[in-house]
Amino acid sequence: MRHRNKPWAAEEIAAHPQYIVPQPSGNKGRWHHFFGNSNPLYVEVGSGKGRFVTGMADENPGINMIGIEKFDTIIISGLERMIERGLKNVIMLKEDVNEITSFFGPKEVDRLFINFTDPWPKNRHAKRRLTHEGFLQKYVEILKDGGEIHMKTDNRLLFQYSLQSFSEFGLTLKNISLDLHEDGLEGNVMTEYEEKFSSEGQPIYRVEAVWNGREDE
Amino acid sequence: MRHRNKPWAAEEIAAHPQYIVPQPSGNKGRWHHFFGNSNPLYVEVGSGKGRFVTGMADENPGINMIGIEKFDTIIISGLERMIERGLKNVIMLKEDVNEITSFFGPKEVDRLFINFTDPWPKNRHAKRRLTHEGFLQKYVEILKDGGEIHMKTDNRLLFQYSLQSFSEFGLTLKNISLDLHEDGLEGNVMTEYEEKFSSEGQPIYRVEAVWNGREDE
Repeated sequence: MRHRNKPWAAEEIAAHPQYIVPQPSGNKGRWHHFFGNSNPLYVEVGSGKGRFVTGMADENPGINMIGIEKFDTIIISGLERMIERGLKNVIMLKEDVNEITSFFGPKEVDRLFINFTDPWPKNRHAKRRLTHEGFLQKYVEILKDGGEIHMKTDNRLLFQYSLQSFSEFGLTLKNISLDLHEDGLEGNVMTEYEEKFSSEGQPIYRVEAVWNGREDE
Repeated sequence: MRHRNKPWAAEEIAAHPQYIVPQPSGNKGRWHHFFGNSNPLYVEVGSGKGRFVTGMADENPGINMIGIEKFDTIIISGLERMIERGLKNVIMLKEDVNEITSFFGPKEVDRLFINFTDPWPKNRHAKRRLTHEGFLQKYVEILKDGGEIHMKTDNRLLFQYSLQSFSEFGLTLKNISLDLHEDGLEGNVMTEYEEKFSSEGQPIYRVEAVWNGREDE
């Protein structure tokens, strides 16, 4: 994603702490309290311009949605969407996904979304892929038993890698689609990338990976 | 596959018991003895005209290869290939894959191949798919711990179904390719279907599913 210089972004973000919540570790294990309800907690990692999280929150008032995106210049678009729609069930965190276990308590998250993430195609960058074992280790700490990771991408090599990574980690794969827009998915919320790639005739890949908890617990 | 009437097929098969081995259950648990060596045992289910099994045997003299195909009129082509090449490390069984546990002993098989199998697209026929749980149950009885199922197909919906079926059964997925001829695979032996579909620009899907044995053993 191109990062245009937006010097006013940091200020705008700081002015809306109800949407881009600062110091999220203060809410760790207490997000239900923050949202004031006991609705399921859904988290998207690498939220970009926030189209998915705002769309999900808009269409699903019965969930609480949190997007994580580290870049000022990108998350600002998400902030604009949230302000515009006045949504109460979505926030974003301007944070690094590497720190995700600082923001959520053990088994606090019902569902995790990874949409059109950077494929980091070089092998030596594999650790940076958001479906690398190192990240999965963190995700399952915060996922409920029976919680799910939902992934979409247009990148064939990343998808192949991710299916194997999920499987080797012990997640169970279901609802695999190698052409999402051909197969269809009820309630599918499209990201900007998805709309672009799909309109170009590029197939969209999707999978749900289920975490059944640790056997030794 | 079209079944042309070949009234002479049964006779031809009966005349070559060294290639199409009758009453295979007599060799159950003893195939190493049959082949006269301790090489790895590879089995293909639904072998069709036998191009894969004869190709594999030809290119890999250090394995023993067995193909299973129930139709006279199809397996006859495999027989002709085996006679023509005079291969000593491949046989075929004119049998039903449903009976596979009658032909092989527990943990006797190193690797199992499922190539371009009938997709049985209707849900009510799902049980007939060679990657249905009912078949996996039989395969893992005869597979060694650490043994693998290698699948190739051109059928997207069958592949999606099979990935999920393998994963839910507890097999671990690796070396997934959603476009085999783009990704490449060293030593890939093509089937007739593969050559046809691939030359038409249809992607070939492939996966290796690893059986790590039962946890309660």
